[in-house]
Amino acid sequence: MNSHPGKQPGKRTGERRGIRPPWLDRYPGVVTFPVVGMVGGGQLARMTHEAGIPLGIRFKLLSDTPQDSAAQVVSDVVIGDYRDLETLREFARGCDVITFDHEHVPTEHLRALEADGIPVRPGPDALVHAQDKGVMRARLDAIGVPCPRHRIVSDPEDVAAFAAEGDGFPVVLKTVRGGYDGKGVWVVDSAEEAADPFRAGVPVLAEEKVDYVRELAANVVRSPHGQAVAYPVVESQQVNGVCDTVIAPAPDLDRTLALKAEELALNIAKELDVVGHLAVELFQTRDGRILVNELAMRPHNSGHWSMDGAITSQFANHVRAVLDLPLGDPRPRAKWTVMVNVLGGDFPDMYSAYLHCMARDPKLKIHMYGKDVKPGRKVGHVNTYGDDLDDVLERARHAAGYLRGTITE
Amino acid sequence: MNSHPGKQPGKRTGERRGIRPPWLDRYPGVVTFPVVGMVGGGQLARMTHEAGIPLGIRFKLLSDTPQDSAAQVVSDVVIGDYRDLETLREFARGCDVITFDHEHVPTEHLRALEADGIPVRPGPDALVHAQDKGVMRARLDAIGVPCPRHRIVSDPEDVAAFAAEGDGFPVVLKTVRGGYDGKGVWVVDSAEEAADPFRAGVPVLAEEKVDYVRELAANVVRSPHGQAVAYPVVESQQVNGVCDTVIAPAPDLDRTLALKAEELALNIAKELDVVGHLAVELFQTRDGRILVNELAMRPHNSGHWSMDGAITSQFANHVRAVLDLPLGDPRPRAKWTVMVNVLGGDFPDMYSAYLHCMARDPKLKIHMYGKDVKPGRKVGHVNTYGDDLDDVLERARHAAGYLRGTITE
Repeated sequence: MNSHPGKQPGKRTGERRGIRPPWLDRYPGVVTFPVVGMVGGGQLARMTHEAGIPLGIRFKLLSDTPQDSAAQVVSDVVIGDYRDLETLREFARGCDVITFDHEHVPTEHLRALEADGIPVRPGPDALVHAQDKGVMRARLDAIGVPCPRHRIVSDPEDVAAFAAEGDGFPVVLKTVRGGYDGKGVWVVDSAEEAADPFRAGVPVLAEEKVDYVRELAANVVRSPHGQAVAYPVVESQQVNGVCDTVIAPAPDLDRTLALKAEELALNIAKELDVVGHLAVELFQTRDGRILVNELAMRPHNSGHWSMDGAITSQFANHVRAVLDLPLGDPRPRAKWTVMVNVLGGDFPDMYSAYLHCMARDPKLKIHMYGKDVKPGRKVGHVNTYGDDLDDVLERARHAAGYLRGTITE
Repeated sequence: MNSHPGKQPGKRTGERRGIRPPWLDRYPGVVTFPVVGMVGGGQLARMTHEAGIPLGIRFKLLSDTPQDSAAQVVSDVVIGDYRDLETLREFARGCDVITFDHEHVPTEHLRALEADGIPVRPGPDALVHAQDKGVMRARLDAIGVPCPRHRIVSDPEDVAAFAAEGDGFPVVLKTVRGGYDGKGVWVVDSAEEAADPFRAGVPVLAEEKVDYVRELAANVVRSPHGQAVAYPVVESQQVNGVCDTVIAPAPDLDRTLALKAEELALNIAKELDVVGHLAVELFQTRDGRILVNELAMRPHNSGHWSMDGAITSQFANHVRAVLDLPLGDPRPRAKWTVMVNVLGGDFPDMYSAYLHCMARDPKLKIHMYGKDVKPGRKVGHVNTYGDDLDDVLERARHAAGYLRGTITE
């Protein structure tokens, strides 16, 4: 962890040293805590609120509906559409900083908020790299970050040309905007299969199908001051394109490669001027390299383990970063921490499964999002930690499977 | 930890085993999570909500004002007076269980809610022991729990008689109802000084001034099933009658005495049929005995360390207990955890102090309650943990002092 410029303030002589925050003048009385405006009411907002409560900050939410995951647990909720600039502007009034549950707010709206004098963190110039995979790849190339071979392709014939330039098919195609959790991604074996991605009218990025041994994620948090912290690199296991299991730290990861991944993520955060949490999804290739798969500029599924497994969670550090507070220690509290997502299954009543899960494992940490159970939908996750990875993995997988209903004993 | 009767359910065969919760029929759709109604909007309610978010439960708050500590962070808030039965009844409608931030709800109101069919946890017959010190002492005597010598006294002359029955003055006088944090407590050196306590028209309890070496607290949580867990016994240091520092576990505490204190608290919880968290404040006497000082039936200041120092916090276990869920592991995650309360001082702007505190100690855990800073008022606490008690104590005391403004470097 880098040291923070605020680390050595002068003595106070009866008055706080000269760092009176600008919002102090806006509040009558003695309430001096800032208001963090969160756009988006999903589970990331919910867990960010949970992490913000102990800091005493005010949390204001812009949510699509009152039933959204975060709207169920936050006091100050505005129901509205983040795609509407006037809604955003009205929401931002009275916020000291705006941050995000997702990356879908239009860039021009973010610029308008900045022009209104509202700090937007991460800012639009950083966020665009998490919104547009074409912009992201071009920028990572420019700063020398290793990526899969890639280029923007114009039609199925161009996909065939891209394949011929390298090792041939299969080729991965991605719409540059709008994809997540495997949506907006195709793996094609021929030009004939490559028609679908072009139908949306969005530019399409072609990438080599990387021969990887596993997926890793490097999570870092950076503040406007430029302080940054790196969480240990984790292994992320996907099922059907959706994150299933995260192991922290990544088992048997070569120390040099782990440091390289952390440095790579810290460097991206710095070069792209990211403020807040940055998740860098990585491929570990069979020949021992790491390549960047995706970027996310918000708390990320690959960092959920930190809620119970790190000294400071990704959510707490995201809040600290967007407020330009010194960051918390990202180091692990346990030898191993495992996160397994709870997906919706055939049993809508997950609550009754608590009885068995909690009685079986009194150390289990359940995190449910208040979302209606639909098959395949992420509705929660569980964390386990301990010294024995096999045991920690078994406990997390059992609990997640029992909650989903795929394990019945 | 005892095992839970639910630990060995039968196999499921396509349907959840027969523990369909009663509230399931009341909800349309698939939302099966219960509603916990919390009476009182103080910091204990705030931290209970924080602990309830990951469980996916619904949290409904009855608060005096919208500015109360918990009301700032909870979505579903009713503003009203808990002393008014109709307000309570209206609030309780739609709650699956009622629990408390404080012990001030009149017993007859709790009985009325129970008569309406709403589970009240802890129930009125248990709670009265935390509401009325006279009732508490009589009951502890009856079940053989060691207490300071005591009896109800009628006037200053009776106080002199009580003193003469033992080792003389000083004598401790307490109003049987309404006291907290040193309020409602007098230490008197003569009958002449003993007039004040009788002015309120409330029965007065006289107690010997115990010759103690330190104060301890035994925290336990018990569920309606009768499952109970015991946190490690802590040392609690008071300043001016207000809790200042808690060290978990209590340093240099004889193992036999520690077990005796845990058993004593578990026994009180069982005999009084407590549901939820029970804090037993204890005197460790110079001659090696432990005597019960006070009881609290709610999450307690002496258990705040558990938020960062235990596998399951007192707040999470209180929620689990009132919902009759299996309890979580209460064991410590660190060798030492220290909690120091943050009291209001002369600097109303505590937020600006974050910069120094967080930069100085990236492992520091700050818990602020969103309360206006008034001199001497509990507005937050800090937790630190680690292997070296001196270091852990120094870090917590520095941070609390800096936030308060009594330490300026």
